[in-house]
Amino acid sequence: MSNLAADLRQRPVSNKPDSSSDQGPSVGAVPAAQVSASDSDEDDLPVKPSKPAPSPQGSDSLDEALKDFSPRWRNWVIRGIFTWLMIFSFAVLIYLGPLALVLVTFAIQIKCFHEIITIGYIVYRSYDLPWFRTLSWYFLFTSNFFFFGESMIGYFGVLLQRQDLLWPFVTYHRFISFSLYTAGLVGFVCSLVKKHYLKQFTLFGWTHVTLLLVVAQSHFIVQNVLEGLIWVLVPVSMIICNDIMAYMFGFFFGRTPLIKLSPKKTWEGFIGGAFSTIIFGIMLSYVLLQYDYFVCPVRYDEAKEALSMDCVRSHVFVISEYTLPETLQGILRLLRLSSKVGSQKTTVSVYPFILHSVALSVFASVIGPFGGFFASGFKRAFKIKDFADTIPGHGGIMDRFDCQFLMATFVHVYHFSFIRVPNPQNIVQSVLMLTPEQQLQVFLLLQEKLLKKGILSNITTTTIDAL
Amino acid sequence: MSNLAADLRQRPVSNKPDSSSDQGPSVGAVPAAQVSASDSDEDDLPVKPSKPAPSPQGSDSLDEALKDFSPRWRNWVIRGIFTWLMIFSFAVLIYLGPLALVLVTFAIQIKCFHEIITIGYIVYRSYDLPWFRTLSWYFLFTSNFFFFGESMIGYFGVLLQRQDLLWPFVTYHRFISFSLYTAGLVGFVCSLVKKHYLKQFTLFGWTHVTLLLVVAQSHFIVQNVLEGLIWVLVPVSMIICNDIMAYMFGFFFGRTPLIKLSPKKTWEGFIGGAFSTIIFGIMLSYVLLQYDYFVCPVRYDEAKEALSMDCVRSHVFVISEYTLPETLQGILRLLRLSSKVGSQKTTVSVYPFILHSVALSVFASVIGPFGGFFASGFKRAFKIKDFADTIPGHGGIMDRFDCQFLMATFVHVYHFSFIRVPNPQNIVQSVLMLTPEQQLQVFLLLQEKLLKKGILSNITTTTIDAL
Repeated sequence: MSNLAADLRQRPVSNKPDSSSDQGPSVGAVPAAQVSASDSDEDDLPVKPSKPAPSPQGSDSLDEALKDFSPRWRNWVIRGIFTWLMIFSFAVLIYLGPLALVLVTFAIQIKCFHEIITIGYIVYRSYDLPWFRTLSWYFLFTSNFFFFGESMIGYFGVLLQRQDLLWPFVTYHRFISFSLYTAGLVGFVCSLVKKHYLKQFTLFGWTHVTLLLVVAQSHFIVQNVLEGLIWVLVPVSMIICNDIMAYMFGFFFGRTPLIKLSPKKTWEGFIGGAFSTIIFGIMLSYVLLQYDYFVCPVRYDEAKEALSMDCVRSHVFVISEYTLPETLQGILRLLRLSSKVGSQKTTVSVYPFILHSVALSVFASVIGPFGGFFASGFKRAFKIKDFADTIPGHGGIMDRFDCQFLMATFVHVYHFSFIRVPNPQNIVQSVLMLTPEQQLQVFLLLQEKLLKKGILSNITTTTIDAL
Repeated sequence: MSNLAADLRQRPVSNKPDSSSDQGPSVGAVPAAQVSASDSDEDDLPVKPSKPAPSPQGSDSLDEALKDFSPRWRNWVIRGIFTWLMIFSFAVLIYLGPLALVLVTFAIQIKCFHEIITIGYIVYRSYDLPWFRTLSWYFLFTSNFFFFGESMIGYFGVLLQRQDLLWPFVTYHRFISFSLYTAGLVGFVCSLVKKHYLKQFTLFGWTHVTLLLVVAQSHFIVQNVLEGLIWVLVPVSMIICNDIMAYMFGFFFGRTPLIKLSPKKTWEGFIGGAFSTIIFGIMLSYVLLQYDYFVCPVRYDEAKEALSMDCVRSHVFVISEYTLPETLQGILRLLRLSSKVGSQKTTVSVYPFILHSVALSVFASVIGPFGGFFASGFKRAFKIKDFADTIPGHGGIMDRFDCQFLMATFVHVYHFSFIRVPNPQNIVQSVLMLTPEQQLQVFLLLQEKLLKKGILSNITTTTIDAL
């Protein structure tokens, strides 16, 4: 449990809505934890707090070492140190490979869930709700069981089905998940106590929205990892780059306010961040594209009988020739006429992924920030400065991942819609999961259809075993 | 809008929590709409209100005709009339076929969404929230677009992809859904207004939980309809039967209270209801099994180029011989020895669906009621008697569908796990959605695998077109 919780519990509880904001009578005000008075009055809470947070647990010795600095500078130093620490850890993770990344994604997901549930726990003062904590962890478990199982079956179904111990979990995965969930629902209904109905239902909803936001989206990250490290590394870096560059541009050139929710964000920062992110995305993609390690998906290799990251590159990661659009060709011709050099070039060679990276950058810098605005609005709604104080100088894990979840979902949907080529091997594997009779039936049906379409021809004889 | 809303608006609003129940200071009390004083004090609100509801809109002339009855009897008559009206409408719907059922499922889903959102709207007094209604209808639209699209692509993908107008919607369905949803999210963030943050986020969560409960589950009903009318007709009737029989048994034999949440429910009703439902389920299934109309799924018929409900019966709907378990055989032998008649019979002939219907009955009568308890607890939490007053004598549509949604999800998962046989035709159709090169690749890979496994043999020549 965080200091935040302890902090909130000690404060006198006020039932009256804060006078500065009319939250309506239905939902009372939450004590303004971690929000210094000046912040909440002036309403200039930055999304990234630049004022010092009450000294977090992990950095006591750091505080000691930095005691000569002014509080503002001290926080900057702590924030800087932990920024580099995070970037370094991320690099180590990438080096360790997909499995490590998947495990860390789980750890982050659980911590984010914990942070949001703790806020609900405090906001609705649910200390005496029977079974509340047990039930929310149980729902976290069942939803992970469901989502993780679905991913694993999607990717490694045939492999898993071969294991004596695992096949019932593969075959009846949805039924088991549903039964587990229903048991939780029955548990919730049985835990209802007359005087707490409203709180219990509110927190039931709170838990489910959190599951939808955190658990569902974190599994998209897992799937992106399995599709190739580049599908995680590039988007994650884009969000970080956009955050930093938007801040820099805003700091030096910021004049025009962007959105009331985050008064420190400016149009100048927004636009500068977007351009920087596009350029950074292209450069980073170009570097990563040179290594198979980043572009190969994790697949089960039948020959080696092990998971493998060897692959023949998908066409997305191989240089292709693109014909330039007419107008661009015209402009180039004019330029060449005036300079009187160069041959008539109408095509350009580029990795298709570079073009996709521009689409990702645009989302990261135009829509991505709305993930941050959403989190920012949420924190203001419940009058908290950060989700927690897990990372010194940065707030909770959730404060750093607000945009990452939305971005991961975008990457997942983008990959599913525009990149994924149905893998013939996967389809064949799904056929091999049928009974022998059905396998034969599929084969004969397919043969008939392909013959009719002229894709296959001149099959002389196809004798079939009597099975 | 219902009378309920108007009723609530006219009452003086009290911010103080109700003294009889400690809902905690965070969430204020809701005016006790439609709850008569005695009801809320004695806490004996039945799930099905037997006291008269304030005269609903639709039944003014009925009220006039029934004015000589006592209020209690009047409500019983109204309730009875509308019960039969609903059963009759349901029968007509079944007669009209799957398409009509799907359309009505949509209508019910929209009405349920409307009822729950209206409660949120009233509970949190959100009359002046900017864009709230527009946004919640928009989210209803996007989630329906997503779920309905997913079902249709799953069932009729190949057919839809052939249409010039529809193929982009099939190919990019998830991308379009995600874009629509993200637009809603951006709209929500832009609609945030400082003084309403907390209400806006609360209702955002409220909307999403409702979508999860109502929209997601209603699409399982749609899928069940497509799998064959029996998969909807039997479970829906089971829930109704269990409701009625549990009430009857409770009325005549009820002594031992079952759950605090619904003080009028008894163990006697629960057990009597369960046994009645199992017997009723077997009888109804046996009747419906005689007609192809109820057991055939809706499929696209390539030959007819139309949707069709002709089918070769799945093995679930064909009489099979089952070997009796040893112990049962022993008991039968003993019985026969004593009566000295009958031959040694060790097998029994039965439709497999009859056995499945027992599993469905058990769920409908053991877990199903928890759907009702959940709804009941929800209504108590927000101090409302019914979700709305849509059906005279019955309350809102949601009051009649609380258990049906949970049941539909169970049937869907049960069908998916235990009944669904991967349809060779479907797999072939998914192959035909690939490019010709990939189709050929799948065919050759499959041929190789089947040859290796000995399922296919002695293929002499397979000449392939140069494409």
